[in-house]
Amino acid sequence: MNISSNAPGAVAEQGEQVDAVHGSVTTPTGWRAGIAACGTKYSGRNDLALVVSDSPCTAAALFTTNRVKSAHIHYDMDVLSRNTQAIRGVLINAGSANACTGAEGIAASGTVAHFAEQTLAVPENSMLVMFTGVIGIPLPIDKVQQGICIATQNLTASHGIESAQAIMTTDTRPKHGAIQIPMSDGSTIHIGGMAKGSGMIHPTMATLLSTITTDAAITSEALDAALRYVADRSFHCISIDGDTSTNDTLLALANGQANNTPIANVESSDGQAFVLGLLHLCRYLAREIARDGEGASRLITIHIQGAASYHDAHQVAMTIARSPLVKTALFGADPNWGRVVCAIGYSGVPIDPERMLLHFGDTKVFAQGVPLPFDEQAVHQLLNVPNVTITAHLGMGEQQATVWTCDFSYDYVKINAEYRS
Amino acid sequence: MNISSNAPGAVAEQGEQVDAVHGSVTTPTGWRAGIAACGTKYSGRNDLALVVSDSPCTAAALFTTNRVKSAHIHYDMDVLSRNTQAIRGVLINAGSANACTGAEGIAASGTVAHFAEQTLAVPENSMLVMFTGVIGIPLPIDKVQQGICIATQNLTASHGIESAQAIMTTDTRPKHGAIQIPMSDGSTIHIGGMAKGSGMIHPTMATLLSTITTDAAITSEALDAALRYVADRSFHCISIDGDTSTNDTLLALANGQANNTPIANVESSDGQAFVLGLLHLCRYLAREIARDGEGASRLITIHIQGAASYHDAHQVAMTIARSPLVKTALFGADPNWGRVVCAIGYSGVPIDPERMLLHFGDTKVFAQGVPLPFDEQAVHQLLNVPNVTITAHLGMGEQQATVWTCDFSYDYVKINAEYRS
Repeated sequence: MNISSNAPGAVAEQGEQVDAVHGSVTTPTGWRAGIAACGTKYSGRNDLALVVSDSPCTAAALFTTNRVKSAHIHYDMDVLSRNTQAIRGVLINAGSANACTGAEGIAASGTVAHFAEQTLAVPENSMLVMFTGVIGIPLPIDKVQQGICIATQNLTASHGIESAQAIMTTDTRPKHGAIQIPMSDGSTIHIGGMAKGSGMIHPTMATLLSTITTDAAITSEALDAALRYVADRSFHCISIDGDTSTNDTLLALANGQANNTPIANVESSDGQAFVLGLLHLCRYLAREIARDGEGASRLITIHIQGAASYHDAHQVAMTIARSPLVKTALFGADPNWGRVVCAIGYSGVPIDPERMLLHFGDTKVFAQGVPLPFDEQAVHQLLNVPNVTITAHLGMGEQQATVWTCDFSYDYVKINAEYRS
Repeated sequence: MNISSNAPGAVAEQGEQVDAVHGSVTTPTGWRAGIAACGTKYSGRNDLALVVSDSPCTAAALFTTNRVKSAHIHYDMDVLSRNTQAIRGVLINAGSANACTGAEGIAASGTVAHFAEQTLAVPENSMLVMFTGVIGIPLPIDKVQQGICIATQNLTASHGIESAQAIMTTDTRPKHGAIQIPMSDGSTIHIGGMAKGSGMIHPTMATLLSTITTDAAITSEALDAALRYVADRSFHCISIDGDTSTNDTLLALANGQANNTPIANVESSDGQAFVLGLLHLCRYLAREIARDGEGASRLITIHIQGAASYHDAHQVAMTIARSPLVKTALFGADPNWGRVVCAIGYSGVPIDPERMLLHFGDTKVFAQGVPLPFDEQAVHQLLNVPNVTITAHLGMGEQQATVWTCDFSYDYVKINAEYRS
């Protein structure tokens, strides 16, 4: 794999089989998490997480491309413009998005970040912050500070999964994982991660609040290159509803405690191994977000093959993933292939229906511009399951992409029509 | 108004007040319609319409930009490439989209078109065809031909509204209208129109099946220029679900029976009057399509003001109109302005939240980057009505656009999740 090449097909293929990965942000050496219920919005559950490294980390982050950005993004971008070499961790609070809160929201971000730094006894400007929840609600500073005190007291390597639970909003389950990778010098590095998000998900930079920890020694430049490459092939491959959030943040922190020979270049063999491992983990997290989309009853995997470029394949796949007509049909387990072909047609990518092949699961339903006879009831049964796969071969080239989405159900409408979800 | 200028603000403003217009495709002189129940898909209702002029018409048409196009579009494009001076009418059938039906679908279009020409005793290649319904179902030629025989027998100027009813699919009511315009030579011209469509609506060329008739004398070139200008400001200003159909067709036919001095140039005063009248009618039809979107409980009008260009204003407005989160919130009458601001932010148009102003109805809810206090319950009541208006001023310039959409309800999911709607 060469991450600077324009032929990511091989990587995408290797990443296709994304198995469950066990672990969390505290699996890598030197990482601890603390949790607290500070009552920002939810009662009777934890809603604040501190993820902290025992030693300084190199850092890289991707933020939303939405021109309306959460205050935490303005704050973090400012911190990272001065410090990507000695970050100690991140404070995450669910309940208020702290978006559209103006200068006060940015100041509030700094207030709670500095409070966390003092409580944790780490240097100033070493803690980042992330918020998620309703847009436009001022951050309740006092409650967050109380939460920081509690979470600092229970910081432990065994609170990784609990921290993934604490950052949930409309999520129905936590998303977390970890992998280990052997390095060429005989050392072993670990990468852990967690993510949240189930609505307003159509990432164009990263998805709503994902934190990646590692004990690898890796320069901030190499970490940044790896993160950008991987985001394009993981979080940028999911859509729940086509809405790109104001708060999207993907953060990676590397504390070097694996004592591997530092990775300075993603083109090196260790760099390539790191990227592939990070890709594996991020694809797993991204897929779990799609599976837990608001109101979702099925995970839908869309494979586009035979495209002229990866970009074309990705664009066609994301267009299908965004179509309300495809997503409602799949809620009804209706093999309504015409809606998929229609979405491919308006994707903006040059295609020729005469060259196309379309499968629902293993059943070929459309080829060379016309439908094929198939057993409607059998394919209905095939689609009436928790995991559905649609594969289209465009016949235009050799490239491919895979994206994930979910169906569009009554519950999506219910969740989002209820007063101020 | 100058339709070749790049400053359409004045026109958009004049077109903003789109009142109900009475009449139909048979209001202009020399137009008749026939109807039939040929049982293509629906039973117990008419599903076929013939709209026919007593004399030859100049013609102009816009078709979907979807790369997968209905067979009727391939057929009509071929006819219009040879004949835009002597078209006699259009045959419309609801039930089969005749899309993804390959060479046989195109041949079937010709078969029924020629059958209609013979039955009506009009020249070969003078009738156009349009189909709408489920993608991939072969056109039932025998049934359509039986319908043509019946419809030819009941051709009358009083079947205009019935023809708008006959072309409905998931529409809950017909969309039709007509206007009259005085010409400079003392004559009066009429423009009539009808349209159908309530799902797979995100036109990028025109919307699903709209037919415009007129008794004006106008060259095909001037008619084409008028139609393109108007489509951008009417049918291209609505979205139901973001899905651009395979069958979108907007057709205008002018038979000259008003005996006005022929319009050869849309820049002339009569040409400008024609364009403005056509704009008025098409905006009415487009708005009626949005109001009758699948499962809709409200019509949502989105005004974007203070944009740097009409294109920017239109793009921001259509991004809001497409957002499932905005549309589900409005189903719940939730004044969740954060989702509107979020959509503006990811529209791709350069904006600055500090310069923005947002109103729900007359209530200002957001200004200069921060929310304003407002009476939640009062605004909830304000939104809990059949017609809702959202106005955003971007503070970036002088241009504006208005688009229409509808809310996203349980019934949208129901209609589209039911087996093969």
